[in-house]
Amino acid sequence: MSAELQDNPMIGAEGIMTTDTHPKALSVRVGDATITWVAKGSGMIEPNMATMLGLIATDAAVGKDALRYLARLAADRSFNAITVDGDTSTNDTLLVVATGRAHNPEIVGEGTAEFGQLSEAVIEVAQLLAQAIVRDGEGATKFITITVDEGATREECLRVGKRIANSPLVKTAFFASDPNLGRILAAVGNAGVSDLDPSTIGLRIGDVTVVERGGRAGAYTEAQGQAVMKPAEISMTITLGRGVETATVWTCDFSYDYVKINADYRS
Amino acid sequence: MSAELQDNPMIGAEGIMTTDTHPKALSVRVGDATITWVAKGSGMIEPNMATMLGLIATDAAVGKDALRYLARLAADRSFNAITVDGDTSTNDTLLVVATGRAHNPEIVGEGTAEFGQLSEAVIEVAQLLAQAIVRDGEGATKFITITVDEGATREECLRVGKRIANSPLVKTAFFASDPNLGRILAAVGNAGVSDLDPSTIGLRIGDVTVVERGGRAGAYTEAQGQAVMKPAEISMTITLGRGVETATVWTCDFSYDYVKINADYRS
Repeated sequence: MSAELQDNPMIGAEGIMTTDTHPKALSVRVGDATITWVAKGSGMIEPNMATMLGLIATDAAVGKDALRYLARLAADRSFNAITVDGDTSTNDTLLVVATGRAHNPEIVGEGTAEFGQLSEAVIEVAQLLAQAIVRDGEGATKFITITVDEGATREECLRVGKRIANSPLVKTAFFASDPNLGRILAAVGNAGVSDLDPSTIGLRIGDVTVVERGGRAGAYTEAQGQAVMKPAEISMTITLGRGVETATVWTCDFSYDYVKINADYRS
Repeated sequence: MSAELQDNPMIGAEGIMTTDTHPKALSVRVGDATITWVAKGSGMIEPNMATMLGLIATDAAVGKDALRYLARLAADRSFNAITVDGDTSTNDTLLVVATGRAHNPEIVGEGTAEFGQLSEAVIEVAQLLAQAIVRDGEGATKFITITVDEGATREECLRVGKRIANSPLVKTAFFASDPNLGRILAAVGNAGVSDLDPSTIGLRIGDVTVVERGGRAGAYTEAQGQAVMKPAEISMTITLGRGVETATVWTCDFSYDYVKINADYRS
């Protein structure tokens, strides 16, 4: 699949009151069908459908049940896994339309190869757009990917990832490029996962292992921590050591400009 | 009861790494007994005992069970009802000591008049200190009291109050003295209270009724909203219209200085 962000002149057009600084739109070809996505958003972002604006349209022929299942799946793996400020809006909307104009044999079963191909493409596109919202998060200077691995359930992985992503202390540490790892681990412990065993927790930032089995990794140095916190794009992996489930959450840092945008927007 | 904040030279002493800008200590007389409280904290504050430093000592004679009950009750009505940034620390501590040196007849029953008198004094003192932590919250310019009334349970009232108090959008609106009431109501809806009926919600800020039965109050004007958001101390009441329970939460606003303190503290 080749997916590429495309400029869309409709978004961010003058006269529309929005704090978006970039358009978020994308088209992709899957076999003979096309999928097009349009989204907007940059603040009040921790979607929990039904509440952001995201529109998917495809000319593929897709059965109603398969389409509904796909919409939920795509939302869970993209928009419902991002947060800018933890403030869920009351009107996030994800709309999926399949016109059938591609004249493929209708995709009905969720287990079919065709559904697999379509859903992979839709999820990838949805993730790119959800990530575009985070990259354009109010005041954002960094884009952070948080993967939580080895959880007992996907839900608890998501919970841990969101807790880290929404922590003002973690977010300001990212803004400062500060390897304040205590803040990250405190957020893990504060995620409300019961019976979490600190001695099985691991933390990797970029390619640096910071925490192993609940303790500072032997080879870790503060200089390494400083180096991995510098880039504008940072990935971290938390391993819970409790199971085989995983979830990925995307977020941004918390800067002076977030305060400015939300405190000074009327002046 | 006369309770008064007293300076304590031990707190904020040079050489102790802390972002506290004021000492938090207090003594009060109850009958023949004295209660003394000492606390510290200004960031990473949404206590959920056991995790802040709060010490109560009294010379009253109190039975072990009554003292333990009182410690929990006082924590719930004070420290566990404040938040600066929603980041629960891993080492909040509340310690209660009763030496018995006042030589009163030991207070054992939770239903007695003596226990009532003592617990009222301890809760009031604990609230004053918890509020002192919020007033000294990192970057705080405003002190906000959020009362949630007419809930089905105290727990749901607390949940709604905390959600409002932790919303970065609400907190930046307070910093801006901006009557952005949509942000407050969105936080109420986002608190995870099931079956909340928007048509029974009310909101009063200061002495101005803003929302009645889910709609804008007839007499409310934006000028009134601006006026009530200006003071350094603001009280608001949300009525849920679901029951008779209540909870009060104390918080502060979210300013440039919160970002500065947590992003620039190493430089």
